[in-house]
Amino acid sequence: MLKLSEVKPTVLKIGGSVITDKSGELAARTEVINRLAEEIGKAGVKNLIIVHGGGSFGHPTAQKYGIKDGLKEDSQKVGFAETHHVMTVLNGLVMDALVWHGVPAVSVTPSSCIITESGRMKLFEETIVEMLLKMGITPVLYGDATLDEKLGFTILSGDQIVSYVARKFNACRIVIGVDVDGLYDADPKEVKNAKLYTHLTLRELKDAQGKLGKSTSSDVTGGMLGKIIELIPAVEQGIPVTVVNAAKPNHIYKALIGERVEGTIIRKE
Amino acid sequence: MLKLSEVKPTVLKIGGSVITDKSGELAARTEVINRLAEEIGKAGVKNLIIVHGGGSFGHPTAQKYGIKDGLKEDSQKVGFAETHHVMTVLNGLVMDALVWHGVPAVSVTPSSCIITESGRMKLFEETIVEMLLKMGITPVLYGDATLDEKLGFTILSGDQIVSYVARKFNACRIVIGVDVDGLYDADPKEVKNAKLYTHLTLRELKDAQGKLGKSTSSDVTGGMLGKIIELIPAVEQGIPVTVVNAAKPNHIYKALIGERVEGTIIRKE
Repeated sequence: MLKLSEVKPTVLKIGGSVITDKSGELAARTEVINRLAEEIGKAGVKNLIIVHGGGSFGHPTAQKYGIKDGLKEDSQKVGFAETHHVMTVLNGLVMDALVWHGVPAVSVTPSSCIITESGRMKLFEETIVEMLLKMGITPVLYGDATLDEKLGFTILSGDQIVSYVARKFNACRIVIGVDVDGLYDADPKEVKNAKLYTHLTLRELKDAQGKLGKSTSSDVTGGMLGKIIELIPAVEQGIPVTVVNAAKPNHIYKALIGERVEGTIIRKE
Repeated sequence: MLKLSEVKPTVLKIGGSVITDKSGELAARTEVINRLAEEIGKAGVKNLIIVHGGGSFGHPTAQKYGIKDGLKEDSQKVGFAETHHVMTVLNGLVMDALVWHGVPAVSVTPSSCIITESGRMKLFEETIVEMLLKMGITPVLYGDATLDEKLGFTILSGDQIVSYVARKFNACRIVIGVDVDGLYDADPKEVKNAKLYTHLTLRELKDAQGKLGKSTSSDVTGGMLGKIIELIPAVEQGIPVTVVNAAKPNHIYKALIGERVEGTIIRKE
């Protein structure tokens, strides 16, 4: 069994927009989930943590009941239950595919081991993730509806979990799989001439941040900047981040085995 | 919001043999699950904790890979992953039915918040169950494949969880739903004249224990004694246990609303 200091895991994030059809509701892309499970199995990365997003499972249900803003009326309680439940359904599809491809992966339910305070991770019973890593089993976490000490409950994003576990377990790198080719200076789905950043230092990222949007609500990158900002503390800790297009076959596989692939690399210096 | 000392929850156990067909593999009795969810919703018990067993989901998979005896070879790791995964599938069916019947129930994944030592619960991040109870949301736990400090991993039974949470959260009562009418002096499925105990004190139970089987492996009651022995510490703490037939319509409903129903009641004195 490994010591934790020897583990240095890779943290892989799979975006909700990759594994679900965000224009639908509860619309999983099962063929993409299966392909990604196969790529992960084939890459055979030791010491891997996987985190996935909610896409059209978590978001519509959470929005319907206003879960992110917390408990305001009793009728939301069933909504909180439903939001967590649909996320476990999506996670179940991911786990099915991983186990089917022989990946020894065990889901770690965020709402069963994490409590937030005003939306930020506060209590995290991390012993279980630590034990799984030491045993060579891949923990799989996901964006979830969690209990919150101030709000009652809220939504915890997969991106926040990625940043937290990467720092906590001293990750060697973070690989972010999204449905575009990386971080652009504008939303590539809207702006034809959007320019892809291939390499960014932390300083360049912070400079770009001013131009791209002061807050996530004014985010011109199609939501990508908001995700990246969440990762800044991990980059500051020296953990490099690679953003690749997980919707394109073999991009995640190549990124995991360390082969050059189209995308954005963000490093401290 | 309630104080925890005011909560005094009811702990309801639903046996794996009730919600699955134990002669099959991965064979859920969805119509029974739905009926029970309806009964639980109709009973409307405030401060409820539900725990369910694994039946033909957990047991065959766990047995196939020898999960209970712990990690001995690498090939078991995928088996551990698979055992946990199939339990989440059964739990998903239960959660689906509960949410569908408007019960604000949230699953709390045992393997995400409990670590055992030689098969006994050691670390339990109980804040989440506590917060759910205070909010009036029903936590749902289940028998699961868990990490174990001595064995690597093992199987944690729903019965052990019931006994632990009942004591921890100072339950007012425990209701055990099984597929027979209560505790008999012999296996009622094998012995025609098996006698049903309607009331037992702790002393009577311990006296009976000597006759019925010294260990669970020599258990003449068809496995029921083993379950009951797990509950003795809760009874010793003054928590009454009612064993009823959950396979019969409305027995769980009646037990939950406190109406007299055929079964076995075990009290301290």
